[in-house]
Amino acid sequence: MPNPIACLLIIGNEVLSGRTRDANLQFLATRLGELGIPLREVRVIPDVPETIIATVNEVRAKHDHVFTTGGIGPTHDDITSECIAAAFGVPWAVHEETRAIMAADYARRDPPVEMNAARLRMATLPLGAVPIRCAMTSAPGFSMGNVHVMAGVPRIMQSMFDALAPSLTGGVPVVSRAVHAIGVFEGNIAEPLEAIQKRYPDLDVGSYPFYRPGPAGSTGFPGGGVALVSKGVSLADVEAATAAITEMLVKMGATPIQGEPG
Amino acid sequence: MPNPIACLLIIGNEVLSGRTRDANLQFLATRLGELGIPLREVRVIPDVPETIIATVNEVRAKHDHVFTTGGIGPTHDDITSECIAAAFGVPWAVHEETRAIMAADYARRDPPVEMNAARLRMATLPLGAVPIRCAMTSAPGFSMGNVHVMAGVPRIMQSMFDALAPSLTGGVPVVSRAVHAIGVFEGNIAEPLEAIQKRYPDLDVGSYPFYRPGPAGSTGFPGGGVALVSKGVSLADVEAATAAITEMLVKMGATPIQGEPG
Repeated sequence: MPNPIACLLIIGNEVLSGRTRDANLQFLATRLGELGIPLREVRVIPDVPETIIATVNEVRAKHDHVFTTGGIGPTHDDITSECIAAAFGVPWAVHEETRAIMAADYARRDPPVEMNAARLRMATLPLGAVPIRCAMTSAPGFSMGNVHVMAGVPRIMQSMFDALAPSLTGGVPVVSRAVHAIGVFEGNIAEPLEAIQKRYPDLDVGSYPFYRPGPAGSTGFPGGGVALVSKGVSLADVEAATAAITEMLVKMGATPIQGEPG
Repeated sequence: MPNPIACLLIIGNEVLSGRTRDANLQFLATRLGELGIPLREVRVIPDVPETIIATVNEVRAKHDHVFTTGGIGPTHDDITSECIAAAFGVPWAVHEETRAIMAADYARRDPPVEMNAARLRMATLPLGAVPIRCAMTSAPGFSMGNVHVMAGVPRIMQSMFDALAPSLTGGVPVVSRAVHAIGVFEGNIAEPLEAIQKRYPDLDVGSYPFYRPGPAGSTGFPGGGVALVSKGVSLADVEAATAAITEMLVKMGATPIQGEPG
């Protein structure tokens, strides 16, 4: 059975304007790979209801899981939750258990926090949603069908994902091995590398150049090289491809470095 | 006339797997905002021909400009250029001027670099494409219609964008002003902030909580606060909204900090 696949929707004008640098994609990509739910697509979309609703409905039909980040706070630009309700065609209604949990949390604070209309929005969920409760905040994320809605603030998102992960049905974990070689140009290895990719069609064999700054005034890429990465669900194939890449580099007179370079 | 809008396609398995953290989105979002070509959508997609072709054709019809990063190197996983040709239904053919420029560059190197089949791929462009030449490399990006194809390596992408930018027809620059307030919770300002947003419907008024780590063992958000950002093409409106936000914070007894906090 093939692995389930996932899409991430990053919702927020602040990412599209460049004000905020997204810090959630890499975390989720890595964690989902480990769970055997590889990320196949990411979209960053603005705080526009029609766009959110249409995008959610498009991607939830195409992927086994959809994860969203952003837009579930108390302010007017936090519209993800009501848009998910609209996408599923269900009412957006106060979730009584959540309201009670949040009210108790707010009452315990010193000074106590008021459960006002803005905060009540965070206890309002699409009908049928299952809250994702985490240690960082009493305002929950939630799962609605295959759509998992989380906060945009990285440490809250991570806490919500930790709470959600055990309930996700994963697949075979994706494993990868990297070989680095300093002073090797991609243009010199393209042909033998492609032959290795063809020998292991179920793997992703990728080539990623890297550069380290050289002394001032130098030209070219004095500390440049390539990272050659084999990735897939078969550890045996990944290790065999890594051995073939290592052999290819040795034949060229390069010095392969297994794993990430120091 | 409304501003032209843009979409960014980040092409590459390495971003979707979490191996590489994208560093191009924020640069392009900021620079495009300054040019009055706001980014409306970003997609991260894998190195899969059908996906690249279908996505390019979908987004180039919906946006004034499409920018792509990644997949224009010499290795087998660099398939962006041939996919753009397929998307436009034109041949993918050696661009003679580019081949000559690259060959001359390679011949000048010490030791000389061979113009092999893999490197010739980087001189192969969709028929009708206009090369984007930059100072970092003789292998170009290119513009094909409203699709601007750039490298994934950030410093090369930035050099290509610098070369491309003067030829882009921009709009009115997007300006923004931020007010920060320590110790203010979003839940306490949601209502008056929404009123300010409604008074300036052409602006984006956004609220972004931030947290600074507190002493070990502390609870809550000891250094927490909110950034309140007004953004739009009318500087007068942005300044008026910023003044209204400042007044709102003073009324609550908070201390507004203009601009980014130190």
